[in-house]
Amino acid sequence: MKVTVRVTLKQGVLDPQGKAIQHALGSLGFDGIDNVRQGKVIELDLADGTSESDIIDMCEKLLANPVIEDYIIDMEAA
Amino acid sequence: MKVTVRVTLKQGVLDPQGKAIQHALGSLGFDGIDNVRQGKVIELDLADGTSESDIIDMCEKLLANPVIEDYIIDMEAA
Repeated sequence: MKVTVRVTLKQGVLDPQGKAIQHALGSLGFDGIDNVRQGKVIELDLADGTSESDIIDMCEKLLANPVIEDYIIDMEAA
Repeated sequence: MKVTVRVTLKQGVLDPQGKAIQHALGSLGFDGIDNVRQGKVIELDLADGTSESDIIDMCEKLLANPVIEDYIIDMEAA
C-alpha cells in the first residue's frame, strides 16, 4: 500500500528556504514570483491494511512537527 | 496562479534520508514499513499566465537536479 504524506509549514510560519528560492528565481530572471513555500513529501510503502490512525500516529510522532507543520495524508489503493 | 512542484529522487538513487525515516519508524514500533522515500514539494505563487515552459525552466535550472531527481508540475487555476 502506497501512502504519500505532504508536510508543509503552517500559514504564518516564516519559511526562509522558500524565500531563498523566491530570490534565486528572481535573480535568474523569472518575474512575477509572488510567494514560494517549501515543504517535504514522504512516500511510504506500508503493509496492506495499515490503518489511517496508525499513519496519523506516524505523522504526529515523527514525520511532521505538529506545532509548526501541517500534513496531508494521501492513501492510494495498492 | 498556484503551482505545486514535487521533486523526488529518481528510482535507483540512494535515499539515506528515507532510510533514516524507515528505521526511525521501526524503532517507534511501527511494523510493515517496506520502503520510505523523501522528496520535497515547492508551492509557487506565480503571475497569472506564466507559461508551462517557464515553469519547466525553473525546475531544470533551480528547483530540481535533473541528473538525479524527477519533478512533477501541478498547475491549478487561480
